Amino acid sequence: MSGAETGWVQVAGLGPGDDALITDEVRAALTEATDVVGYIPYVNRVAPRPGLTLHASDNRAELDRASHALHMAAAGKRVVVVSSGDPGVFAMASALFEALEAGPKEWLDLDIRILPGITAMLAAAARLGAPLGHDFCAINLSDNLKPWALIEHRVRLAAQAGFAMAFYNPRSKSRPHQFGKALEILRAECGADCLISFARNVTKPDEQLVTTTLGAATPEMADMRTVVIVGTAQTRRIGRHVYTPRSAPVG
Amino acid sequence: MSGAETGWVQVAGLGPGDDALITDEVRAALTEATDVVGYIPYVNRVAPRPGLTLHASDNRAELDRASHALHMAAAGKRVVVVSSGDPGVFAMASALFEALEAGPKEWLDLDIRILPGITAMLAAAARLGAPLGHDFCAINLSDNLKPWALIEHRVRLAAQAGFAMAFYNPRSKSRPHQFGKALEILRAECGADCLISFARNVTKPDEQLVTTTLGAATPEMADMRTVVIVGTAQTRRIGRHVYTPRSAPVG
Repeated sequence: MSGAETGWVQVAGLGPGDDALITDEVRAALTEATDVVGYIPYVNRVAPRPGLTLHASDNRAELDRASHALHMAAAGKRVVVVSSGDPGVFAMASALFEALEAGPKEWLDLDIRILPGITAMLAAAARLGAPLGHDFCAINLSDNLKPWALIEHRVRLAAQAGFAMAFYNPRSKSRPHQFGKALEILRAECGADCLISFARNVTKPDEQLVTTTLGAATPEMADMRTVVIVGTAQTRRIGRHVYTPRSAPVG
Repeated sequence: MSGAETGWVQVAGLGPGDDALITDEVRAALTEATDVVGYIPYVNRVAPRPGLTLHASDNRAELDRASHALHMAAAGKRVVVVSSGDPGVFAMASALFEALEAGPKEWLDLDIRILPGITAMLAAAARLGAPLGHDFCAINLSDNLKPWALIEHRVRLAAQAGFAMAFYNPRSKSRPHQFGKALEILRAECGADCLISFARNVTKPDEQLVTTTLGAATPEMADMRTVVIVGTAQTRRIGRHVYTPRSAPVG
Protein backbone atom coordinates (compact mmCIF):
# COMPACT_ATOMS: atom_id res chain seq x y z
CA MET A 1 0.00 0.00 0.00
CA SER A 2 1.39 3.39 -0.97
CA GLY A 3 1.60 6.35 1.35
CA ALA A 4 -1.12 8.16 -0.53
CA GLU A 5 -3.57 5.39 0.36
CA THR A 6 -2.93 5.45 4.08
CA GLY A 7 -2.01 9.04 4.83
CA TRP A 8 -4.57 11.79 5.29
CA VAL A 9 -4.99 15.44 6.20
CA GLN A 10 -7.81 16.68 8.40
CA VAL A 11 -8.12 20.40 9.02
CA ALA A 12 -9.75 20.62 12.43
CA GLY A 13 -11.44 23.50 14.22
CA LEU A 14 -10.58 23.75 17.91
CA GLY A 15 -13.25 26.37 18.57
CA PRO A 16 -12.61 29.80 20.08
CA GLY A 17 -10.76 28.74 23.23
CA ASP A 18 -12.83 26.77 25.73
CA ASP A 19 -12.07 23.07 25.29
CA ALA A 20 -15.73 22.26 26.09
CA LEU A 21 -16.52 23.64 22.61
CA ILE A 22 -14.41 21.02 20.79
CA THR A 23 -16.43 18.37 18.94
CA ASP A 24 -15.95 14.62 19.36
CA GLU A 25 -15.08 14.45 15.67
CA VAL A 26 -12.08 16.71 16.23
CA ARG A 27 -11.02 14.81 19.37
CA ALA A 28 -11.14 11.56 17.40
CA ALA A 29 -8.95 13.04 14.64
CA LEU A 30 -6.37 14.17 17.19
CA THR A 31 -6.38 10.67 18.72
CA GLU A 32 -5.61 9.05 15.36
CA ALA A 33 -3.07 11.61 14.17
CA THR A 34 0.66 10.96 13.79
CA ASP A 35 1.38 14.66 13.22
CA VAL A 36 -0.24 17.93 14.25
CA VAL A 37 0.55 21.11 12.35
CA GLY A 38 -0.47 24.65 13.22
CA TYR A 39 0.15 28.09 14.61
CA ILE A 40 1.97 27.88 17.95
CA PRO A 41 -0.91 28.77 20.35
CA TYR A 42 -3.24 26.29 18.67
CA VAL A 43 -0.71 23.44 18.67
CA ASN A 44 -0.16 24.22 22.35
CA ARG A 45 -3.78 23.23 22.96
CA VAL A 46 -3.05 19.64 21.84
CA ALA A 47 -1.89 17.23 24.54
CA PRO A 48 1.44 15.57 23.69
CA ARG A 49 1.51 11.75 23.60
CA PRO A 50 3.85 9.03 22.35
CA GLY A 51 3.56 8.59 18.60
CA LEU A 52 2.38 12.15 17.99
CA THR A 53 4.73 14.78 16.57
CA LEU A 54 3.74 18.40 17.12
CA HIS A 55 4.84 20.91 14.44
CA ALA A 56 4.22 24.44 15.70
CA SER A 57 4.87 27.30 13.31
CA ASP A 58 4.64 31.06 13.35
CA ASN A 59 1.65 33.07 12.23
CA ARG A 60 1.41 34.13 8.56
CA ALA A 61 3.05 30.86 7.53
CA GLU A 62 -0.29 29.42 6.41
CA LEU A 63 0.79 28.24 2.95
CA ASP A 64 4.04 26.70 4.18
CA ARG A 65 2.15 24.94 6.92
CA ALA A 66 -0.44 23.66 4.45
CA SER A 67 2.26 22.36 2.07
CA HIS A 68 4.04 20.69 4.94
CA ALA A 69 0.82 18.92 5.95
CA LEU A 70 0.18 17.73 2.37
CA HIS A 71 3.77 16.51 1.98
CA MET A 72 3.52 14.49 5.18
CA ALA A 73 0.14 13.01 4.18
CA ALA A 74 1.60 12.04 0.79
CA ALA A 75 4.33 10.21 2.74
CA GLY A 76 1.71 8.23 4.67
CA LYS A 77 1.32 10.34 7.79
CA ARG A 78 -2.03 11.05 9.44
CA VAL A 79 -1.92 14.81 9.76
CA VAL A 80 -4.25 17.14 11.65
CA VAL A 81 -3.90 20.82 10.81
CA VAL A 82 -5.28 22.63 13.84
CA SER A 83 -7.14 25.88 13.39
CA SER A 84 -8.90 28.05 15.93
CA GLY A 85 -12.63 28.47 15.54
CA ASP A 86 -13.90 26.87 12.35
CA PRO A 87 -11.22 26.11 9.75
CA GLY A 88 -13.51 27.27 6.94
CA VAL A 89 -13.99 30.80 8.32
CA PHE A 90 -10.90 32.97 7.77
CA ALA A 91 -8.68 30.09 8.81
CA MET A 92 -6.63 27.18 7.47
CA ALA A 93 -9.06 25.32 5.16
CA SER A 94 -8.75 27.71 2.20
CA ALA A 95 -4.99 27.91 2.71
CA LEU A 96 -4.80 24.12 2.46
CA PHE A 97 -6.68 24.10 -0.84
CA GLU A 98 -4.48 26.92 -2.16
CA ALA A 99 -1.44 24.77 -1.39
CA LEU A 100 -3.16 21.76 -2.97
CA GLU A 101 -3.80 23.75 -6.15
CA ALA A 102 -0.17 24.88 -6.29
CA GLY A 103 1.23 21.42 -5.59
CA PRO A 104 1.89 18.23 -7.56
CA LYS A 105 -1.09 16.52 -9.22
CA GLU A 106 -0.65 13.40 -7.09
CA TRP A 107 -1.85 15.38 -4.11
CA LEU A 108 -5.35 15.51 -5.63
CA ASP A 109 -5.78 11.85 -4.65
CA LEU A 110 -5.03 12.54 -1.00
CA ASP A 111 -7.71 11.92 1.62
CA ILE A 112 -8.49 15.47 2.78
CA ARG A 113 -11.27 16.36 5.20
CA ILE A 114 -12.33 19.58 6.90
CA LEU A 115 -13.73 19.17 10.43
CA PRO A 116 -15.92 22.12 11.42
CA GLY A 117 -15.63 23.92 14.74
CA ILE A 118 -17.32 26.71 16.66
CA THR A 119 -16.25 29.90 14.93
CA ALA A 120 -15.55 33.01 16.99
CA MET A 121 -18.52 35.07 15.79
CA LEU A 122 -21.00 32.36 16.76
CA ALA A 123 -19.37 31.85 20.15
CA ALA A 124 -19.43 35.62 20.68
CA ALA A 125 -23.05 35.86 19.54
CA ALA A 126 -24.00 33.10 21.98
CA ARG A 127 -22.27 34.87 24.87
CA LEU A 128 -24.01 38.15 24.00
CA GLY A 129 -27.45 36.70 23.31
CA ALA A 130 -28.47 36.36 19.68
CA PRO A 131 -27.24 39.40 17.75
CA LEU A 132 -26.82 37.33 14.56
CA GLY A 133 -30.38 35.94 14.77
CA HIS A 134 -31.31 37.52 11.45
CA ASP A 135 -29.54 37.61 8.07
CA PHE A 136 -25.89 38.47 8.62
CA CYS A 137 -22.46 38.62 7.03
CA ALA A 138 -18.90 37.91 8.11
CA ILE A 139 -16.12 40.19 6.90
CA ASN A 140 -12.39 39.87 7.53
CA LEU A 141 -11.27 43.48 8.03
CA SER A 142 -7.61 42.67 7.37
CA ASP A 143 -6.36 44.01 4.05
CA ASN A 144 -3.42 41.60 3.91
CA LEU A 145 -5.12 39.65 1.11
CA LYS A 146 -7.53 42.13 -0.44
CA PRO A 147 -7.64 45.86 -1.08
CA TRP A 148 -9.01 48.08 1.67
CA ALA A 149 -11.34 49.78 -0.83
CA LEU A 150 -13.09 46.44 -1.34
CA ILE A 151 -13.60 46.08 2.41
CA GLU A 152 -15.15 49.55 2.62
CA HIS A 153 -17.41 48.68 -0.32
CA ARG A 154 -18.55 45.48 1.40
CA VAL A 155 -19.22 47.18 4.75
CA ARG A 156 -21.31 49.84 2.99
CA LEU A 157 -23.36 47.35 0.95
CA ALA A 158 -23.83 45.09 3.97
CA ALA A 159 -25.23 48.05 5.91
CA GLN A 160 -27.53 48.95 3.02
CA ALA A 161 -28.71 45.35 2.87
CA GLY A 162 -29.65 45.45 6.56
CA PHE A 163 -27.32 42.61 7.51
CA ALA A 164 -26.07 42.14 11.02
CA MET A 165 -22.29 41.91 10.69
CA ALA A 166 -19.37 40.12 12.27
CA PHE A 167 -15.87 41.49 11.75
CA TYR A 168 -12.82 39.26 12.14
CA ASN A 169 -9.35 40.77 12.57
CA PRO A 170 -10.81 44.25 13.05
CA ARG A 171 -7.61 46.02 14.02
CA SER A 172 -3.90 45.38 14.47
CA LYS A 173 -0.83 47.40 15.37
CA SER A 174 0.19 47.51 11.72
CA ARG A 175 -3.16 48.96 10.60
CA PRO A 176 -4.60 50.93 13.52
CA HIS A 177 -6.70 53.43 11.54
CA GLN A 178 -8.78 51.33 9.16
CA PHE A 179 -11.26 50.10 11.72
CA GLY A 180 -12.08 53.75 12.48
CA LYS A 181 -12.95 54.20 8.83
CA ALA A 182 -15.26 51.20 8.98
CA LEU A 183 -16.96 52.72 12.03
CA GLU A 184 -17.46 55.99 10.13
CA ILE A 185 -19.13 54.16 7.25
CA LEU A 186 -21.35 52.27 9.68
CA ARG A 187 -22.39 55.43 11.53
CA ALA A 188 -23.26 57.10 8.22
CA GLU A 189 -25.26 54.12 6.97
CA CYS A 190 -26.83 52.74 10.16
CA GLY A 191 -27.04 55.76 12.48
CA ALA A 192 -25.44 56.42 15.86
CA ASP A 193 -27.97 54.37 17.86
CA CYS A 194 -27.20 51.02 16.22
CA LEU A 195 -25.70 48.54 18.70
CA ILE A 196 -22.15 47.24 18.36
CA SER A 197 -20.52 44.57 20.52
CA PHE A 198 -16.84 43.82 21.12
CA ALA A 199 -16.06 40.26 22.19
CA ARG A 200 -12.42 39.82 23.17
CA ASN A 201 -10.88 36.43 23.90
CA VAL A 202 -14.32 34.92 23.77
CA THR A 203 -14.85 31.81 25.96
CA LYS A 204 -11.34 32.17 27.41
CA PRO A 205 -10.73 32.97 31.11
CA ASP A 206 -10.03 36.63 30.30
CA GLU A 207 -13.07 37.08 28.05
CA GLN A 208 -14.34 40.66 27.76
CA LEU A 209 -17.75 41.57 26.33
CA VAL A 210 -18.68 45.19 25.71
CA THR A 211 -21.82 46.42 23.98
CA THR A 212 -22.32 50.06 23.11
CA THR A 213 -23.72 52.16 20.26
CA LEU A 214 -22.02 53.10 17.02
CA GLY A 215 -22.10 56.69 18.28
CA ALA A 216 -20.07 55.78 21.38
CA ALA A 217 -17.79 53.15 19.79
CA THR A 218 -14.10 53.98 19.34
CA PRO A 219 -11.45 52.10 17.34
CA GLU A 220 -9.49 51.34 20.53
CA MET A 221 -12.27 49.02 21.68
CA ALA A 222 -11.02 46.42 19.17
CA ASP A 223 -7.77 44.54 18.62
CA MET A 224 -6.77 41.32 16.83
CA ARG A 225 -8.27 39.20 19.60
CA THR A 226 -11.65 40.86 19.26
CA VAL A 227 -14.62 39.82 17.17
CA VAL A 228 -16.87 42.79 16.50
CA ILE A 229 -20.61 42.29 15.99
CA VAL A 230 -22.74 45.08 14.56
CA GLY A 231 -26.49 44.86 14.92
CA THR A 232 -29.24 45.82 12.51
CA ALA A 233 -31.79 48.60 13.05
CA GLN A 234 -33.87 46.00 14.94
CA THR A 235 -31.11 44.77 17.27
CA ARG A 236 -31.95 45.57 20.89
CA ARG A 237 -31.10 44.87 24.50
CA ILE A 238 -33.36 42.81 26.72
CA GLY A 239 -32.04 42.54 30.27
CA ARG A 240 -28.38 41.52 30.04
CA HIS A 241 -28.81 40.20 26.51
CA VAL A 242 -28.40 41.60 23.01
CA TYR A 243 -30.50 40.10 20.26
CA THR A 244 -31.81 40.62 16.76
CA PRO A 245 -35.40 39.53 16.20
CA ARG A 246 -36.13 36.97 13.51
CA SER A 247 -38.53 39.28 11.70
CA ALA A 248 -37.81 42.37 9.62
CA PRO A 249 -40.43 45.04 8.99
CA VAL A 250 -41.89 45.80 5.58
CA GLY A 251 -40.28 48.82 3.90
CA MET B 1 -34.20 29.80 47.64
CA SER B 2 -36.72 30.88 45.02
CA GLY B 3 -37.25 29.09 41.74
CA ALA B 4 -35.68 31.96 39.82
CA GLU B 5 -32.40 31.39 41.67
CA THR B 6 -32.13 27.71 40.87
CA GLY B 7 -33.86 27.34 37.53
CA TRP B 8 -32.22 28.10 34.22
CA VAL B 9 -32.66 27.96 30.47
CA GLN B 10 -29.91 26.95 28.09
CA VAL B 11 -30.57 27.06 24.37
CA ALA B 12 -28.31 24.38 22.96
CA GLY B 13 -27.18 23.68 19.41
CA LEU B 14 -27.16 19.98 18.50
CA GLY B 15 -25.32 20.58 15.23
CA PRO B 16 -26.57 19.53 11.81
CA GLY B 17 -27.21 15.85 12.50
CA ASP B 18 -24.11 13.79 13.24
CA ASP B 19 -23.80 13.38 17.03
CA ALA B 20 -20.00 13.58 16.71
CA LEU B 21 -20.51 17.30 16.04
CA ILE B 22 -22.13 17.97 19.45
CA THR B 23 -19.91 19.87 21.89
CA ASP B 24 -19.15 18.73 25.43
CA GLU B 25 -20.78 21.92 26.70
CA VAL B 26 -24.09 20.86 25.16
CA ARG B 27 -23.74 17.29 26.44
CA ALA B 28 -23.16 18.64 29.96
CA ALA B 29 -26.27 20.82 29.75
CA LEU B 30 -28.36 17.84 28.70
CA THR B 31 -26.96 15.83 31.62
CA GLU B 32 -27.99 18.51 34.14
CA ALA B 33 -31.39 19.29 32.64
CA THR B 34 -34.75 18.42 34.23
CA ASP B 35 -36.63 19.35 31.06
CA VAL B 36 -35.87 19.40 27.35
CA VAL B 37 -38.01 21.47 25.01
CA GLY B 38 -37.90 21.52 21.22
CA TYR B 39 -39.15 20.58 17.81
CA ILE B 40 -39.98 16.86 17.63
CA PRO B 41 -37.00 15.61 15.53
CA TYR B 42 -34.50 17.50 17.71
CA VAL B 43 -36.01 16.27 21.00
CA ASN B 44 -35.87 12.76 19.51
CA ARG B 45 -32.07 13.11 19.42
CA VAL B 46 -31.94 13.37 23.24
CA ALA B 47 -31.65 10.06 25.12
CA PRO B 48 -34.44 9.60 27.70
CA ARG B 49 -33.40 9.06 31.34
CA PRO B 50 -35.07 9.10 34.76
CA GLY B 51 -35.56 12.67 36.01
CA LEU B 52 -35.67 14.16 32.53
CA THR B 53 -38.97 15.22 30.96
CA LEU B 54 -39.00 15.58 27.17
CA HIS B 55 -41.40 18.18 25.72
CA ALA B 56 -41.56 17.77 21.95
CA SER B 57 -43.60 20.27 19.98
CA ASP B 58 -44.49 20.92 16.38
CA ASN B 59 -42.60 23.18 14.04
CA ARG B 60 -43.59 26.88 13.84
CA ALA B 61 -44.38 26.85 17.57
CA GLU B 62 -41.13 28.66 18.39
CA LEU B 63 -42.60 31.40 20.58
CA ASP B 64 -44.87 29.04 22.53
CA ARG B 65 -41.93 26.72 23.08
CA ALA B 66 -39.74 29.60 24.26
CA SER B 67 -42.41 30.84 26.68
CA HIS B 68 -42.88 27.34 28.00
CA ALA B 69 -39.16 27.05 28.66
CA LEU B 70 -39.05 30.41 30.48
CA HIS B 71 -42.10 29.51 32.58
CA MET B 72 -40.50 26.25 33.65
CA ALA B 73 -37.18 27.95 34.47
CA ALA B 74 -39.05 30.54 36.57
CA ALA B 75 -40.56 27.61 38.45
CA GLY B 76 -37.09 26.23 39.24
CA LYS B 77 -36.60 23.77 36.39
CA ARG B 78 -33.33 23.33 34.53
CA VAL B 79 -34.47 23.60 30.94
CA VAL B 80 -32.56 22.91 27.74
CA VAL B 81 -34.16 24.18 24.56
CA VAL B 82 -32.69 22.04 21.81
CA SER B 83 -32.08 23.54 18.41
CA SER B 84 -30.47 22.06 15.36
CA GLY B 85 -27.24 23.59 14.14
CA ASP B 86 -26.36 26.71 16.09
CA PRO B 87 -29.24 28.23 18.07
CA GLY B 88 -28.14 31.74 17.10
CA VAL B 89 -28.41 31.16 13.34
CA PHE B 90 -32.06 31.12 12.17
CA ALA B 91 -33.00 29.00 15.17
CA MET B 92 -34.33 29.18 18.72
CA ALA B 93 -32.12 31.79 20.44
CA SER B 94 -33.82 34.86 18.98
CA ALA B 95 -37.23 33.29 19.57
CA LEU B 96 -36.32 32.86 23.23
CA PHE B 97 -35.38 36.52 23.59
CA GLU B 98 -38.56 37.56 21.78
CA ALA B 99 -40.56 35.58 24.36
CA LEU B 100 -38.45 37.08 27.14
CA GLU B 101 -39.20 40.59 25.89
CA ALA B 102 -42.94 39.84 25.72
CA GLY B 103 -43.02 38.19 29.14
CA PRO B 104 -43.15 39.33 32.79
CA LYS B 105 -40.30 41.50 34.09
CA GLU B 106 -39.26 38.85 36.63
CA TRP B 107 -38.03 36.72 33.74
CA LEU B 108 -35.21 39.22 33.15
CA ASP B 109 -33.48 37.81 36.24
CA LEU B 110 -33.50 34.27 34.90
CA ASP B 111 -30.21 32.50 34.22
CA ILE B 112 -30.26 32.24 30.41
CA ARG B 113 -27.40 30.93 28.31
CA ILE B 114 -26.95 30.17 24.64
CA LEU B 115 -24.70 27.20 23.83
CA PRO B 116 -23.31 27.40 20.31
CA GLY B 117 -23.32 24.50 17.88
CA ILE B 118 -22.12 23.66 14.39
CA THR B 119 -24.48 25.48 12.06
CA ALA B 120 -25.56 23.83 8.81
CA MET B 121 -23.71 26.19 6.45
CA LEU B 122 -20.37 25.56 8.16
CA ALA B 123 -20.91 21.80 8.22
CA ALA B 124 -21.84 21.94 4.53
CA ALA B 125 -18.86 24.14 3.73
CA ALA B 126 -16.57 21.67 5.49
CA ARG B 127 -17.99 18.71 3.55
CA LEU B 128 -17.58 20.60 0.27
CA GLY B 129 -14.12 22.02 0.96
CA ALA B 130 -13.97 25.70 1.90
CA PRO B 131 -16.48 27.65 -0.20
CA LEU B 132 -17.01 30.18 2.62
CA GLY B 133 -13.28 30.81 3.03
CA HIS B 134 -13.66 34.47 2.09
CA ASP B 135 -16.14 37.14 3.23
CA PHE B 136 -19.63 35.67 3.17
CA CYS B 137 -23.23 36.17 4.23
CA ALA B 138 -26.05 33.99 5.51
CA ILE B 139 -29.59 34.67 4.32
CA ASN B 140 -32.78 32.91 5.37
CA LEU B 141 -34.77 32.70 2.13
CA SER B 142 -38.08 32.09 3.92
CA ASP B 143 -40.43 35.05 3.76
CA ASN B 144 -42.47 33.93 6.76
CA LEU B 145 -41.00 36.74 8.87
CA LYS B 146 -39.86 39.32 6.32
CA PRO B 147 -41.03 40.57 2.93
CA TRP B 148 -39.75 38.74 -0.13
CA ALA B 149 -38.71 42.06 -1.70
CA LEU B 150 -36.22 42.53 1.13
CA ILE B 151 -34.76 39.09 0.47
CA GLU B 152 -34.30 39.93 -3.22
CA HIS B 153 -32.65 43.23 -2.24
CA ARG B 154 -30.24 41.41 0.07
CA VAL B 155 -29.31 38.75 -2.49
CA ARG B 156 -28.62 41.45 -5.07
CA LEU B 157 -26.47 43.58 -2.74
CA ALA B 158 -24.63 40.51 -1.45
CA ALA B 159 -23.74 39.58 -5.03
CA GLN B 160 -22.59 43.14 -5.74
CA ALA B 161 -20.45 43.04 -2.60
CA GLY B 162 -18.72 39.86 -3.79
CA PHE B 163 -19.82 37.81 -0.79
CA ALA B 164 -19.98 34.06 -0.89
CA MET B 165 -23.48 33.21 0.33
CA ALA B 166 -25.26 30.57 2.33
CA PHE B 167 -29.04 30.24 2.01
CA TYR B 168 -31.09 28.60 4.73
CA ASN B 169 -34.66 27.39 4.05
CA PRO B 170 -34.21 27.96 0.33
CA ARG B 171 -37.46 26.38 -0.83
CA SER B 172 -40.58 24.72 0.55
CA LYS B 173 -43.83 23.30 -0.83
CA SER B 174 -45.68 26.45 0.20
CA ARG B 175 -43.28 28.73 -1.70
CA PRO B 176 -41.83 26.73 -4.59
CA HIS B 177 -41.11 29.64 -6.96
CA GLN B 178 -39.13 32.18 -4.94
CA PHE B 179 -35.86 30.28 -4.98
CA GLY B 180 -36.01 30.41 -8.79
CA LYS B 181 -36.22 34.20 -8.55
CA ALA B 182 -33.16 34.23 -6.32
CA LEU B 183 -31.30 32.13 -8.90
CA GLU B 184 -32.28 34.61 -11.63
CA ILE B 185 -30.88 37.50 -9.62
CA LEU B 186 -27.68 35.57 -8.96
CA ARG B 187 -27.22 34.65 -12.63
CA ALA B 188 -27.70 38.29 -13.62
CA GLU B 189 -25.27 39.59 -10.98
CA CYS B 190 -22.65 36.82 -10.83
CA GLY B 191 -22.81 35.20 -14.28
CA ALA B 192 -23.65 31.66 -15.33
CA ASP B 193 -20.23 30.20 -14.48
CA CYS B 194 -20.33 30.95 -10.76
CA LEU B 195 -20.38 27.76 -8.66
CA ILE B 196 -23.36 26.82 -6.49
CA SER B 197 -23.55 23.87 -4.10
CA PHE B 198 -26.57 22.09 -2.68
CA ALA B 199 -25.99 20.27 0.62
CA ARG B 200 -28.99 18.19 1.67
CA ASN B 201 -29.22 16.49 5.07
CA VAL B 202 -25.62 17.41 5.69
CA THR B 203 -23.67 14.99 7.97
CA LYS B 204 -26.67 12.64 8.12
CA PRO B 205 -26.58 9.10 6.64
CA ASP B 206 -28.52 10.26 3.55
CA GLU B 207 -26.39 13.34 2.93
CA GLN B 208 -26.35 14.58 -0.68
CA LEU B 209 -23.81 17.08 -2.01
CA VAL B 210 -24.18 18.54 -5.50
CA THR B 211 -22.05 21.29 -7.00
CA THR B 212 -22.89 22.86 -10.33
CA THR B 213 -22.91 26.31 -11.96
CA LEU B 214 -25.54 29.01 -11.65
CA GLY B 215 -26.21 28.43 -15.35
CA ALA B 216 -27.08 24.77 -14.75
CA ALA B 217 -28.78 25.15 -11.35
CA THR B 218 -32.54 24.60 -11.14
CA PRO B 219 -34.92 25.39 -8.27
CA GLU B 220 -35.74 21.69 -7.84
CA MET B 221 -32.21 21.06 -6.59
CA ALA B 222 -33.20 22.62 -3.23
CA ASP B 223 -35.78 21.86 -0.57
CA MET B 224 -36.17 22.72 3.13
CA ARG B 225 -33.48 20.22 4.11
CA THR B 226 -30.94 21.82 1.82
CA VAL B 227 -28.39 24.49 2.58
CA VAL B 228 -27.35 26.27 -0.59
CA ILE B 229 -23.88 27.78 -0.90
CA VAL B 230 -23.09 30.22 -3.69
CA GLY B 231 -19.46 30.97 -4.46
CA THR B 232 -17.79 34.20 -5.46
CA ALA B 233 -16.13 34.92 -8.80
CA GLN B 234 -12.97 33.33 -7.31
CA THR B 235 -14.60 30.12 -6.06
CA ARG B 236 -13.20 27.09 -7.87
CA ARG B 237 -12.89 23.31 -7.89
CA ILE B 238 -9.67 21.58 -7.03
CA GLY B 239 -9.95 17.80 -7.31
CA ARG B 240 -13.07 16.75 -5.39
CA HIS B 241 -13.14 20.00 -3.43
CA VAL B 242 -14.77 23.40 -3.82
CA TYR B 243 -13.06 26.37 -2.23
CA THR B 244 -12.85 30.14 -2.21
CA PRO B 245 -9.33 31.55 -1.93
CA ARG B 246 -8.55 33.88 0.96
CA SER B 247 -7.46 36.68 -1.35
CA ALA B 248 -9.53 38.91 -3.61
CA PRO B 249 -8.05 40.71 -6.59
CA VAL B 250 -7.74 44.48 -6.84
CA GLY B 251 -10.51 46.13 -8.89
